[in-house]
Amino acid sequence: MRIVEDAGYMVRGFRAGAAAAGIKKRGGLDLAIIFSEREAVGAGVFTTNKVKAAPVLVSQENVRNGRVRVIVANSGNANACTGREGLANSKRTAELVAQELGIDPTEVLVASTGVIGAQLDISLISRSLKSLVQGLSPEGIPRALEAIMTTDSFPKMAQFEGRAGGMPYRIVGIAKGAGMIMPQMATMLCFILTDIQVGAGELKKALSSGVEKTFNRITVDGDTSTNDTVLVMANGMAGNGRMDFQDYEAFSKGLTEVMGKLAAMIVKDGEGATKVIEVRIRGAASSADAIAAARTVANSTLVKTAFYGQDPNWGRIMAALGRSGIKMKEEDVDIWVDDVKIVDSGVGTGFDREKDAAERMKQKEFSVTIELKQGEHEDRVTTCDLTHDYVTINAEYRT
Amino acid sequence: MRIVEDAGYMVRGFRAGAAAAGIKKRGGLDLAIIFSEREAVGAGVFTTNKVKAAPVLVSQENVRNGRVRVIVANSGNANACTGREGLANSKRTAELVAQELGIDPTEVLVASTGVIGAQLDISLISRSLKSLVQGLSPEGIPRALEAIMTTDSFPKMAQFEGRAGGMPYRIVGIAKGAGMIMPQMATMLCFILTDIQVGAGELKKALSSGVEKTFNRITVDGDTSTNDTVLVMANGMAGNGRMDFQDYEAFSKGLTEVMGKLAAMIVKDGEGATKVIEVRIRGAASSADAIAAARTVANSTLVKTAFYGQDPNWGRIMAALGRSGIKMKEEDVDIWVDDVKIVDSGVGTGFDREKDAAERMKQKEFSVTIELKQGEHEDRVTTCDLTHDYVTINAEYRT
Repeated sequence: MRIVEDAGYMVRGFRAGAAAAGIKKRGGLDLAIIFSEREAVGAGVFTTNKVKAAPVLVSQENVRNGRVRVIVANSGNANACTGREGLANSKRTAELVAQELGIDPTEVLVASTGVIGAQLDISLISRSLKSLVQGLSPEGIPRALEAIMTTDSFPKMAQFEGRAGGMPYRIVGIAKGAGMIMPQMATMLCFILTDIQVGAGELKKALSSGVEKTFNRITVDGDTSTNDTVLVMANGMAGNGRMDFQDYEAFSKGLTEVMGKLAAMIVKDGEGATKVIEVRIRGAASSADAIAAARTVANSTLVKTAFYGQDPNWGRIMAALGRSGIKMKEEDVDIWVDDVKIVDSGVGTGFDREKDAAERMKQKEFSVTIELKQGEHEDRVTTCDLTHDYVTINAEYRT
Repeated sequence: MRIVEDAGYMVRGFRAGAAAAGIKKRGGLDLAIIFSEREAVGAGVFTTNKVKAAPVLVSQENVRNGRVRVIVANSGNANACTGREGLANSKRTAELVAQELGIDPTEVLVASTGVIGAQLDISLISRSLKSLVQGLSPEGIPRALEAIMTTDSFPKMAQFEGRAGGMPYRIVGIAKGAGMIMPQMATMLCFILTDIQVGAGELKKALSSGVEKTFNRITVDGDTSTNDTVLVMANGMAGNGRMDFQDYEAFSKGLTEVMGKLAAMIVKDGEGATKVIEVRIRGAASSADAIAAARTVANSTLVKTAFYGQDPNWGRIMAALGRSGIKMKEEDVDIWVDDVKIVDSGVGTGFDREKDAAERMKQKEFSVTIELKQGEHEDRVTTCDLTHDYVTINAEYRT
């Protein structure tokens, strides 16, 4: 069982495609469909933001009964903060797709990414649908991915192959990250397809636990999009029969691996990022403390600019820990950059160690490990540095 | 009663001075003393960070009984994350100053700002103290301020004159803000002197309520320093006798005004800032919701870069509100930039209004008002934009 790098990103029984519908002002593919030839089991995880885009509301509703057939996604318009008209447009999108495919509108999942606050021109979608549906093919997944990318600087795909009940199956995931050259497009979208046979409850459980370990452990700037969506469809064509516990565990692990790969690519492609840093917390008094400490350090603008400056500025890390609300004692804290200990029992280990740490920080990827000595809980968050390009990208007027 | 702009920044019975002790590597004044000729009533408010610098611990202890005589402050070294040796050095500083002035060490308040994690060379202080104490003068307050400034681009002073029990009194405040050209110097220090006669309990109450309305309502980057300190000394030389309620109210208001002026100067001088923005929340369901909403919007890096870009990017404001944890309904939210309504009941008011709002955002100061329609609670936080210079300043390696 392994992540397959060079496979064709195809999964039995799924067809996909994309069209240039004219939703993106600068042109290019902007409408994607991923279709399961037979009824599939579906699950989704959505943004926790109280301001949810219309497609999030529609997909949350439609995924509830666990039976799905198709994902339709557009870029160029997030259909967020668009009121009743926006909700009607997302529902109408599902209806149009269902009609074209001869399925029920409740089997359609919808996702959007792009400008917030502008109404979606539904006629652009309706006039592109027929040829898009006719062109759906098993090789179309990379093209569908291209259509949901906004300013991602590289495509994000990952695959996994396993066996369940003696039968081979595959998991393919595609994602669009937070490369936000055009403001208001920080949405993270991820679609996962698999031919394994799995129950709706099992699928939901595997998805939720995987998201918690992967997408919920990365950060670019601590902001949460109105449109963040992770969807999975499992069509059962592997014919593995009812899964036993061991098969479920292997599948769950594979799903998490695929999402982990995609999550890592999203941070790497973070807005203006030049470095990827894993912030590891050890010895926290509780699991809540562990994640709170990791998130506070990983989101501190002072820590992130120090990463950019390749400066082992541990005073900023201590200050972030101190305001994170966790149980801690300054005099218990140890901090490492990779394998270089820069803080021992709350005080610095001196100039030579800092120099070594600064060397490590010249790498594109490194880790910061923080030992709190308050208990046995651990956690980790992957973040990126805060750079001049981040400011350039996000201060640019929307065009 | 008014803020006096052109007075001499003197208060009866207080003498101040500064020395170039050699603590700042690049030279210049770095050691300040502000001395009350007679015993004064003191109060302090300190950082909420669990990682507290040694001088914070010493001052918290010494201010407890409400009797103080002198503030000694240094720049160039924060004496934070310095362990037992650091604490001993702060205590020793208080002892040396007390000895030189012939007072008790418990009457000394200590404050430091500068590099975190380096030990303070106490010999630099001891050898400068005698001539510094001899040179103390009523006109020395601006010089003391100069000695605590690190990378502030302008001095921050404010005065207030009032009457209590028929007698005139004065409040003078000086502050050092978060201009962090040299990393790790984000500390906010503020010292306030007054000749009013006031009880220790009254002084503490007036100070705490004033800090809550002023320094606790500004943000530069959401990070909290290990050294933040606000100290006030009242020597009673105005001879106003015991204060009645009306006099207390007027004094409390004056104190808040002085701190409000200083707080506004600190945001204006925020790291790399080009704009000052007041984020106003109205109609929140609770006071906790009002401040949470204001802080989340005011600290969002996406919102702050949009301010820099002069972009009325209200989708980012909605997204920040949506993740702030407050009670809200998207369809109830109205948003204004100054007097221009850009969001009405959760949806945008169109391109022309956004154009008008973008014009308002070209100013150096403007407001963003958010009406939630969930209740009667209001709050406001003053913030600055997130700029290229912020990144440059904070990514620079410590030298």
